[in-house]
Amino acid sequence: MWKKPTLIIDTLKVKRNIEKMLRKTVESNIVFRPHFKTHQSAEIGEIFRKEGVDKITVSSVSMAKYFAHHGWNDITIAFPVNLLEITEINKLASTISLNLLVESSYSTEFLAKHLMHDVSVFIKIDTGYHRTGIDAINYKEINPIIEIIKTAEHLQFKGFLAHAGHTYSAISVSGIEDIYQTSVSLLNELKRRYIDDFPKLIISYGDTPSCCIIDNFSGVDEIRPGNFVYYDVMQYQIGSCTTGDIAVAVACPVVAVHPERSELVIYGGAVHLSKEFITDNDGKKSYGLVVHIDKNGWGQPIEEAYVSSISQEHGVVKIKRKDLSKFKPGDVIGVFPVHSCLTANLLNNPSYLAAL
Amino acid sequence: MWKKPTLIIDTLKVKRNIEKMLRKTVESNIVFRPHFKTHQSAEIGEIFRKEGVDKITVSSVSMAKYFAHHGWNDITIAFPVNLLEITEINKLASTISLNLLVESSYSTEFLAKHLMHDVSVFIKIDTGYHRTGIDAINYKEINPIIEIIKTAEHLQFKGFLAHAGHTYSAISVSGIEDIYQTSVSLLNELKRRYIDDFPKLIISYGDTPSCCIIDNFSGVDEIRPGNFVYYDVMQYQIGSCTTGDIAVAVACPVVAVHPERSELVIYGGAVHLSKEFITDNDGKKSYGLVVHIDKNGWGQPIEEAYVSSISQEHGVVKIKRKDLSKFKPGDVIGVFPVHSCLTANLLNNPSYLAAL
Repeated sequence: MWKKPTLIIDTLKVKRNIEKMLRKTVESNIVFRPHFKTHQSAEIGEIFRKEGVDKITVSSVSMAKYFAHHGWNDITIAFPVNLLEITEINKLASTISLNLLVESSYSTEFLAKHLMHDVSVFIKIDTGYHRTGIDAINYKEINPIIEIIKTAEHLQFKGFLAHAGHTYSAISVSGIEDIYQTSVSLLNELKRRYIDDFPKLIISYGDTPSCCIIDNFSGVDEIRPGNFVYYDVMQYQIGSCTTGDIAVAVACPVVAVHPERSELVIYGGAVHLSKEFITDNDGKKSYGLVVHIDKNGWGQPIEEAYVSSISQEHGVVKIKRKDLSKFKPGDVIGVFPVHSCLTANLLNNPSYLAAL
Repeated sequence: MWKKPTLIIDTLKVKRNIEKMLRKTVESNIVFRPHFKTHQSAEIGEIFRKEGVDKITVSSVSMAKYFAHHGWNDITIAFPVNLLEITEINKLASTISLNLLVESSYSTEFLAKHLMHDVSVFIKIDTGYHRTGIDAINYKEINPIIEIIKTAEHLQFKGFLAHAGHTYSAISVSGIEDIYQTSVSLLNELKRRYIDDFPKLIISYGDTPSCCIIDNFSGVDEIRPGNFVYYDVMQYQIGSCTTGDIAVAVACPVVAVHPERSELVIYGGAVHLSKEFITDNDGKKSYGLVVHIDKNGWGQPIEEAYVSSISQEHGVVKIKRKDLSKFKPGDVIGVFPVHSCLTANLLNNPSYLAAL
């Protein structure tokens, strides 16, 4: 059925995950602008479209071009603007509503000078993740950017955008709630400060853990979760989902069985799953959880089984002796990826369990 | 010049790395069967061919098909045979000299029954890495496999093959030498045991660290290093190469500058570099070393600069304040990957510094 490592997508779970998130945004009366970097797939995009979604987020100019080509015409590139792609940006801006992120006067000035079509910009705010963005109370940097935007012919100020990626290392659900509340409070202070000059400015907020755990999004105008469409072992560990919500597994051929160390070797390695891992309470690294898989899908993870190590094409699965004995070379086993965004990026030509 | 993350290949260093390894095999009078999984590139393959190489190693049936299509006709698939691809294997075996790996009676029996063209097989031996293979003194498993091969119409016994991947976690050059000597001694005990029945059987040995550090390969008939063609930060840390030998860098656009924490943000993340990291003596994770790069190439790594964290598309570079001030958004910086095999797998359409 699947001769090589293959991404299997459970279309019904995808739909359920989308509908659940969409419902929360409808109830909170906010804009749902899902991040498409997780799936990077026009086919999965169509599921969103059928649910009524018409605004999306991506993380590169290349992805924006791909989805614009597939009929999406309101796209935020949630990445500090790459000035080297100004030609491609101008081309995109001539055909779709494009939103960019700036976090320096230098980049904003560059855009002001080189844009030939209208573009909206968010100022990227750092609410504590410290990857990108301007500190939320650093008005000394924020004010000059806003002044440049005000006078630029082709720049509209869209608002403040944050990605609270530090929720990924929160150790509890209440830790995620704390991060969310702090971030929203910082962003709203900015909103109060600038709303008179820009009555339409919005607060855009990201990260799947927050968006899964929070139900009432008051104080936010738009959310941009991405990973929730598939989920994965990391989100399960964080508490964003159950294993029953995970909508993708990688079908991997079994190529060797080692009863002496209770291990299976699978054709499924770093070039299929990625090298992302989680560490459990005992300090053991896991590169994925393991399920029985067939054309009808998969059930719960096999108890105590996990991908314990990984090289370019090999994976090693630790599995209880009684479960090991059910496998022989030529069988296929399923692996829940640790980080589905990276796995989906590696595996083209997925299989769908149900019609799209 | 390079608008997006791009793999830059220093062709002259590639040639030098190949020539150096080739020379060692000539001096030791052994077969050089380089592993092509590192580059997976017909173009880089041509450099090997010009040097006189005509036997290669790959790690999947797909790669074997690719290189067979590009004129390579003596290929070892150094991976436990994937029985699900028997149709593809038969097709390959009808046109090229194909060598497969077995490590169980079950898989060998399956091949004996389903092969329609001649194939040579190695028995994969575990000399201490414990990923795949049969323990070198486990005659109870080795003997039955050999008996199946003897009577199978299309199976020829090629010999014993090992990959001493545990050299990657050796903490010193002498640690690597010890692993090499132990492995070769185990393999030669097997050779002595079976040579009378199979006078042509060979010992095939892999792993770049051993092949870089060892000069005299007596006791081995063939080596299969792969990574040495490019090298990377991991090989540099192990002691297999100098930074001057590293033949690839990823050109990454700078998208943000953060003097307050002495960091650059680059467009270059896990989907370009992979999530492979090394840990330095202080416990700091590094996802790559950083160099100045232009159309002429790169020099030594920028002192104390490294990629300190990575997400799907973002990389964060820690860099001394005095060096940080030389960069602005729209510049390009080079990153030596931690594991060039995974990086090359992620980045198509490389740029070459000199004509191929």
